[in-house]
Amino acid sequence: MINVASAEARRVSEAALRRAGVPAQAAALQVDLLIEAELRGRASHGLLRLPRLTDRIANGVASPTATGRMEWRSDSFLRVDGQNGLGPVVAMEALRSGAERARRTGVVVVAIAHNNHLGMLAWYAEKIAEQGLVTLGFTTSEALVHAWGGRTAMLGTNPVAIGVPQEGTPFVLDMATSLVSMGQIHDYAQRGEALPPGWALDANGEPTTDAVAATKGSIAPFGQAKGYALGLALELLVVALTDSAIGRDVTGTLDSTRVASKGDVFILIDPGLQPGTTERIGAYLDLVRASGDEQGERRVAVPGDRAMRVRAERLETGIPLPRPLWAKLRDLAGEPASPTKELT
Amino acid sequence: MINVASAEARRVSEAALRRAGVPAQAAALQVDLLIEAELRGRASHGLLRLPRLTDRIANGVASPTATGRMEWRSDSFLRVDGQNGLGPVVAMEALRSGAERARRTGVVVVAIAHNNHLGMLAWYAEKIAEQGLVTLGFTTSEALVHAWGGRTAMLGTNPVAIGVPQEGTPFVLDMATSLVSMGQIHDYAQRGEALPPGWALDANGEPTTDAVAATKGSIAPFGQAKGYALGLALELLVVALTDSAIGRDVTGTLDSTRVASKGDVFILIDPGLQPGTTERIGAYLDLVRASGDEQGERRVAVPGDRAMRVRAERLETGIPLPRPLWAKLRDLAGEPASPTKELT
Repeated sequence: MINVASAEARRVSEAALRRAGVPAQAAALQVDLLIEAELRGRASHGLLRLPRLTDRIANGVASPTATGRMEWRSDSFLRVDGQNGLGPVVAMEALRSGAERARRTGVVVVAIAHNNHLGMLAWYAEKIAEQGLVTLGFTTSEALVHAWGGRTAMLGTNPVAIGVPQEGTPFVLDMATSLVSMGQIHDYAQRGEALPPGWALDANGEPTTDAVAATKGSIAPFGQAKGYALGLALELLVVALTDSAIGRDVTGTLDSTRVASKGDVFILIDPGLQPGTTERIGAYLDLVRASGDEQGERRVAVPGDRAMRVRAERLETGIPLPRPLWAKLRDLAGEPASPTKELT
Repeated sequence: MINVASAEARRVSEAALRRAGVPAQAAALQVDLLIEAELRGRASHGLLRLPRLTDRIANGVASPTATGRMEWRSDSFLRVDGQNGLGPVVAMEALRSGAERARRTGVVVVAIAHNNHLGMLAWYAEKIAEQGLVTLGFTTSEALVHAWGGRTAMLGTNPVAIGVPQEGTPFVLDMATSLVSMGQIHDYAQRGEALPPGWALDANGEPTTDAVAATKGSIAPFGQAKGYALGLALELLVVALTDSAIGRDVTGTLDSTRVASKGDVFILIDPGLQPGTTERIGAYLDLVRASGDEQGERRVAVPGDRAMRVRAERLETGIPLPRPLWAKLRDLAGEPASPTKELT
């Protein structure tokens, strides 16, 4: 691993995307999403996604220039054909229009199909909540998760994001409905470690603690039957609103060669916050934080607390990247492979 | 326990509410909600709630006649002051207006404050989804659930409902974000059984398997940290949109003497379903059902499957009610206490 200053990682990554034909502004947006994931300690949604993106552009399944075709199906329902554009480029274009409209109509649904991977939903929810809008975000992905009681992957990791405006940084929940990520399974496999029981099934649908076997099988939903039911409901919700592919038909979120067939849904709501409501919410969150042991094992975190702490640290110390990934990014940017400006 | 034909339970329950001053149509609506919960095997949301409701009316914290004051804050945002009316009476009045508007604007938010207990959210989501609308429903409740790592109740059981139109019966998810219900804890206490570990804390915040101690403490969120985070996000979402009470300030969902200060939020979306989408969803759900062992221990259920099976049975065999509850309902209806027309 090597620590790279986030500004340097940003510069090199943007250069890599520009070299792949992505316009400067779009490259900056896509890279900001990936850098923010790294800053918050979510490497699985970070820069490791960039080489796959340039591969996808090279393979013609991601357009470097498309920004999506928007159609207001009705006054508060924005349907978007993503034209295989870059996930955050298409989504932010749509969310800008959606947020503006939501201030007039009170609520807007943005339903996006034919768009590449959105990455970390928190990035979107935070940006919209910072504008004073309550946000719900959903996106589907390739089937990796088995039903509760099931033997094979039938569901995407189907994350949900909820953003609520606050004084200062908004409250943002962003969680997958899987127990763990396939990235975590791959980490265990790479380190040769056994998985905790209950995480995964092998290709035959049998419970396994063998991480390599699990990469060919499926991962568990979080929260047993309830988490499975929630992930399933979100799968159907997204399909009903975007007419995207469903279950095992979803492609293009993990591979480099197939068109992305999943769907993305955002609901933007102007809450018309009453005076004092955000203060009440802030005071409540402090009570929640204080409802555990202050120093003991049982600490209480509010979603986003840890991510913001890690972010503050990494803005100082840099982003830890695997050396081969950093070399790859510099290579994609057409820069010499030997690191020069990293913080270590 | 005694089995009562659902039509007879309905007749007696409606008579009890009418005697408490509830108009016939409102009584029919409120009772339908409670009977449907009984039919689906969810006694905790069933007729045991009715005597508390008549108490609340007698105590002046539930209005037998209010239907709520609706205000379109903007074209797609309906704010409702429930005027302490009966939960389903106020909500269905608002949802009728909301559903009609959603067909024009694409999406509507219905944000209700000052309303009594909604009961089973599935009832609402199903009714709206049957009209072809995708539905999300949220409601808060008195703090019973501890934060993940916390020692005291800070969150309501904050259920979420998601309805998606289908050919025939819609897909409906309806689940609390608590691991179990306080009703289940009371059942264990009544039977003198020990709780499974991990369900609850006692009044001092220590883990307990003593059900009586747990009734004075708090129950766990489902799905550990993630389920807690989801329940928390829903608490904030509802507060931001309805300006309702938050956390431990919520009253009136479990007691008979205090005004209900929680909030209810529905999001109604006209999905503009493409030809073939509901068929694709239906075929997918059948694949999900078939993804376990067909006969073995690991069966896969789709949300609603079990409820619908139980409902079909109970329409034939009647609703199992505790004898004291049935006697109480007949008493409230001004009918002789000795059962005459039950199926047994």
